Amino acid sequence: MINTAPPSGMRDFLPAELARRRYVQQIIRSTFEQFGFVELETPAVENLSTLLGKYGEEGDQLLFRLLHRRDKLTRALETSGVSEKDLAETGLRYDLTVPLARVMAHHPDLPRFFKRYQMQSVWRADRPGKGRFREFMQCDVDITGTKSLLAEVEVCSAVVEALNQLKFTDFAVHLNHRQLLRCLIKAAGIDPAMEETTLVAVDKWDKIGEDGVLKDLEARGIPRSIGETLLALLRRPEKVSEEEELGRLEKALSEIPDAKIPIEELRELLAMATKTPAGPKLFIDATLARGLGYYTGPIFEIRSAQAKGSLGGGGRYDGLIGMFSNREIPAVGFSIGFERVVLVMEENSLFPALGTGAQLLLCRFEDVSPAIALDYATQLRASGIRVEVFPDAGKIGKQIGYADTVGIPVVGILGGNEVKDGVIGLKHLKSGEQAKLSPVLAAAQVNTWLKS
Amino acid sequence: MINTAPPSGMRDFLPAELARRRYVQQIIRSTFEQFGFVELETPAVENLSTLLGKYGEEGDQLLFRLLHRRDKLTRALETSGVSEKDLAETGLRYDLTVPLARVMAHHPDLPRFFKRYQMQSVWRADRPGKGRFREFMQCDVDITGTKSLLAEVEVCSAVVEALNQLKFTDFAVHLNHRQLLRCLIKAAGIDPAMEETTLVAVDKWDKIGEDGVLKDLEARGIPRSIGETLLALLRRPEKVSEEEELGRLEKALSEIPDAKIPIEELRELLAMATKTPAGPKLFIDATLARGLGYYTGPIFEIRSAQAKGSLGGGGRYDGLIGMFSNREIPAVGFSIGFERVVLVMEENSLFPALGTGAQLLLCRFEDVSPAIALDYATQLRASGIRVEVFPDAGKIGKQIGYADTVGIPVVGILGGNEVKDGVIGLKHLKSGEQAKLSPVLAAAQVNTWLKS
Repeated sequence: MINTAPPSGMRDFLPAELARRRYVQQIIRSTFEQFGFVELETPAVENLSTLLGKYGEEGDQLLFRLLHRRDKLTRALETSGVSEKDLAETGLRYDLTVPLARVMAHHPDLPRFFKRYQMQSVWRADRPGKGRFREFMQCDVDITGTKSLLAEVEVCSAVVEALNQLKFTDFAVHLNHRQLLRCLIKAAGIDPAMEETTLVAVDKWDKIGEDGVLKDLEARGIPRSIGETLLALLRRPEKVSEEEELGRLEKALSEIPDAKIPIEELRELLAMATKTPAGPKLFIDATLARGLGYYTGPIFEIRSAQAKGSLGGGGRYDGLIGMFSNREIPAVGFSIGFERVVLVMEENSLFPALGTGAQLLLCRFEDVSPAIALDYATQLRASGIRVEVFPDAGKIGKQIGYADTVGIPVVGILGGNEVKDGVIGLKHLKSGEQAKLSPVLAAAQVNTWLKS
Repeated sequence: MINTAPPSGMRDFLPAELARRRYVQQIIRSTFEQFGFVELETPAVENLSTLLGKYGEEGDQLLFRLLHRRDKLTRALETSGVSEKDLAETGLRYDLTVPLARVMAHHPDLPRFFKRYQMQSVWRADRPGKGRFREFMQCDVDITGTKSLLAEVEVCSAVVEALNQLKFTDFAVHLNHRQLLRCLIKAAGIDPAMEETTLVAVDKWDKIGEDGVLKDLEARGIPRSIGETLLALLRRPEKVSEEEELGRLEKALSEIPDAKIPIEELRELLAMATKTPAGPKLFIDATLARGLGYYTGPIFEIRSAQAKGSLGGGGRYDGLIGMFSNREIPAVGFSIGFERVVLVMEENSLFPALGTGAQLLLCRFEDVSPAIALDYATQLRASGIRVEVFPDAGKIGKQIGYADTVGIPVVGILGGNEVKDGVIGLKHLKSGEQAKLSPVLAAAQVNTWLKS
């Protein structure tokens, strides 16, 4: 027997689940477009010269590579000591940022402030697990070409508005600044050479708690007392406003001149955002580290009581997008954790009833020809309802049973009498209500039944 | 310098082009759903055990295979005489039919009459050329589980209606029947053993013309006189109705009992379709062969004077979908040539003006804070227009120039006076018209300008 499951870590999306994914995509899409973002798509396959070295050593290991073919493969296999690098020159998309950087270099005529969103699958040969897939959707929104903090506010607002539209209520955008974090680490008395490793430990705060971070810092060679000093600096007191928290950080870092700019930027960012969707959601959190080393300014992450872990994150990364362009292109971006958003929406019942599949199954007695049934179906569809026609005539009970089994909520029955009168016999299966109506009125009745 | 072009035969879709693809997808999607079809997605990656041997020898050659990783790769490279089959066990999706067959076997609880559509990329290592890509979108619609001809009419109607909605006017659905073709070949005096090779030649009629087919048949060992007999049988006289053409074929095949059923089926199919969208578009064409050997009943293909070649095709293929299920599952399907449809629509200017990107660029003088500009932007967006905010204050001319360069049709200008009065200064760049209005009225004005 052949194995008919999809490959490990990959998924088939059957209609009901796919409809939910489409719903999320559609809301994100229209929200981002309201903010003036435009959509980009890049190929599933990229040259390895584009991909390698961009995601660290671990990333290179997790790339799916496409095997050479024909002569190229034959030649490769003939060389002695053949290895991975001889067998492939292309691989599957691993994220959406590197392709954006490539596209920006390849199309120098793109708008100077390129506001792009992209929603496509990426592939990573990670060990599959609950909620962790080898093929999954990423959803990125970025503004390139400007260092203005207005760009930070715009990407945060767009993401917050998308989550609002998706009916998320209980979430916040945690906000920090890479330079501020650097200053806090310095203020705690940690050697700047230890900054990266310190960030890795702090990044786990959300998952392993304060004590976990302290232990992790110790394991990285930072004495417990210094760790405690750092945590005291980072820890936000309860029930303080954003302005109060910024004031506390300002005071704590008064001896460190480099802290002025990031604190001022955060203050400006908060002020700009006041009347935007992001305004009520921004939450200064000096413990936020965001693992990736490439952030250069403000960083953000969405946390929700409705979800474990984050629903997305981002920040300013001025050094990355220009990687193929031979010039620095400032950029700020936000990535929505699409798969997690879908999961959390399922767990919290945030999906409305989504119409998938036919609303009405057209059934007919033997004395009605398929041509007549199809004529009715055409009229019903033109009146705006989704109609399936049972393929055979015959026992009506069997036909209605089929509608019931597959979840079609209304049946429309055609016998010789109905056809003579130009009507259709409707039955709403759940309520048992019935009606005999012309196709146009029947479509309206179906809509009424299905709305209530 | 690194090569920043996408890999050979693959494409980046920049926003304007992508918007056109989304428009086509959206219309196809909503049309198919009106017909009660539901959407399926399958992974980009399939096990090679699923893919190999399903597309003929040529197909196997054109599969993209994913190279083994880590230990598996090391072990494979250590074996002597290592070859392609040792280096990969998965590959990229090559079509949408084999994945459907796999899903049907894996989910025995799917509806008995599974009406599914699927619109996803496939990958083929073909030699790239004009209009021929290595990554391209396929768009399939199929009904499984019934031998009723009603299913044929439904898939044809759904596709015709989609093309109608896309504003195609000048097209026909050429219709033939595999059994009929078989009988015609027999009637011409061709050995049944030569049937397949004859079909391959006839299949080229559309491209190489009658004389080309005759020559091709000769090259395949069919004498010119017999070839001419065949062509005379297949050739449809000008200005005959569908019924007359069926009558002609019936008469020509009166000696061949096997011809009765296919002719009767075509007649029934035409009758059923009369009042459906497919009705006026069906065109009996005995020369239609459809290359793929797996068709078992009616076959169809869309031809249009607006396009070279076909815009899609399909037919009944009762032997294929059950390949992983250990039972026969009858099926009929239609595949829209998505890439060609997009191309033909571009060539024939069938696309409406598609809104991509911001409709209004918000510009501000130095005396207006970014916070105020973002407040205005939030209100304008809530009123339903797509708004971009210029990231910096300063020279208004430069900001307007930017809108002009990137194609944003309206600018909204904010100075201290406008803010004091709670209005925004609008300018429609093309007409030069101006207005000072509150955000809500400004949004309405923008919509009015952009509609006219």
